[in-house]
Amino acid sequence: MSTPVPGPRGEYRKSAQRREEILDAAFEVFSRSGYAASSVSEIARTVGMTQTGLLHHFDGKLALLQAVLERRDRDAREVLEGRRGVEWLAGLLEINRRNTGRRGVVQLYAILAAEATVPDHPARPYFVDRFAVIVNATERAFVQCREDGVLRPGVDPRQTAVDAVSLTEGAQLLWLSDLPGVDVMASVRRCIAAALTVPF
Amino acid sequence: MSTPVPGPRGEYRKSAQRREEILDAAFEVFSRSGYAASSVSEIARTVGMTQTGLLHHFDGKLALLQAVLERRDRDAREVLEGRRGVEWLAGLLEINRRNTGRRGVVQLYAILAAEATVPDHPARPYFVDRFAVIVNATERAFVQCREDGVLRPGVDPRQTAVDAVSLTEGAQLLWLSDLPGVDVMASVRRCIAAALTVPF
Repeated sequence: MSTPVPGPRGEYRKSAQRREEILDAAFEVFSRSGYAASSVSEIARTVGMTQTGLLHHFDGKLALLQAVLERRDRDAREVLEGRRGVEWLAGLLEINRRNTGRRGVVQLYAILAAEATVPDHPARPYFVDRFAVIVNATERAFVQCREDGVLRPGVDPRQTAVDAVSLTEGAQLLWLSDLPGVDVMASVRRCIAAALTVPF
Repeated sequence: MSTPVPGPRGEYRKSAQRREEILDAAFEVFSRSGYAASSVSEIARTVGMTQTGLLHHFDGKLALLQAVLERRDRDAREVLEGRRGVEWLAGLLEINRRNTGRRGVVQLYAILAAEATVPDHPARPYFVDRFAVIVNATERAFVQCREDGVLRPGVDPRQTAVDAVSLTEGAQLLWLSDLPGVDVMASVRRCIAAALTVPF
């Protein structure tokens, strides 16, 4: 670390806190400019550090991006942990409800996910994997609903999972574009409710 | 124009052709890099012109972007023109079917639409307006379906329009992210079919 610290535990705490501050700044800069147009020097300036000081904590722009994305995913995993079937699907709604208060995160995700559709984009593996994980997990929840006898007959768990995740991503884009009458959580609820035989 | 031409009609034809070539190049560069990271000089280089030569045809990067977007919208308008109700909704499917062969256009749209969620992005007014126009037109088609007695009872035309457009945008993103089993047209068809009492 580049600053004097009282001892090992204080050093760790201070470094961890500094990392969080850097990630807040990285998040802010990425949200404003997208990944491609952002720079480490701008992020360093935002958090009031030198670029060299920042690079002690994170090994470049891509490492910053990955840490920002992982911090957000941790939160979603905590909501979904230990749930199954209808309860897991209700967790998806809860994540969408929380996101309505986090326009910046949703916007950063939307911009990065779109940028990352270009084959050589550094965040491409992250998003390809992320979409696969979330769609597979949603499919599993619908399969569990079938096991629990609450899936509407004729509903395909995979197709419905693709539709529910697509609807979430698309409704977020329309919401970010200030289209009147967009309620992401309500749209996702309608999509999931149509697949179930119990109230949702 | 900067090149000698045989006469007024030849000059016009030559200029129109040059504009199309420039738009092809602009489309290619925007698709690869997004709007923010693209430059007029790169577009000029791609089409084999000087930047000054290019600026005789288009008044800067924003004018290029608008012309690229308008050229694509023209095509969609032609498909939908003169249709109403279920036939109009079938036109939406037809546009989605065509888009499966135009990954570059879909990708450019996805990146720009996401970039344009940032308040001061130059393409923001275009996308805010575009989403409003497409959702309003889709809502109108569902209202016409109700007039024609083919809308399922209890279906809200506005909500269903928001969901159908959201699903289109989101499924395109997942398709561009190479998620297995994504079929944008099939997803949109399911969404619309669920709102109708006739086969779709």
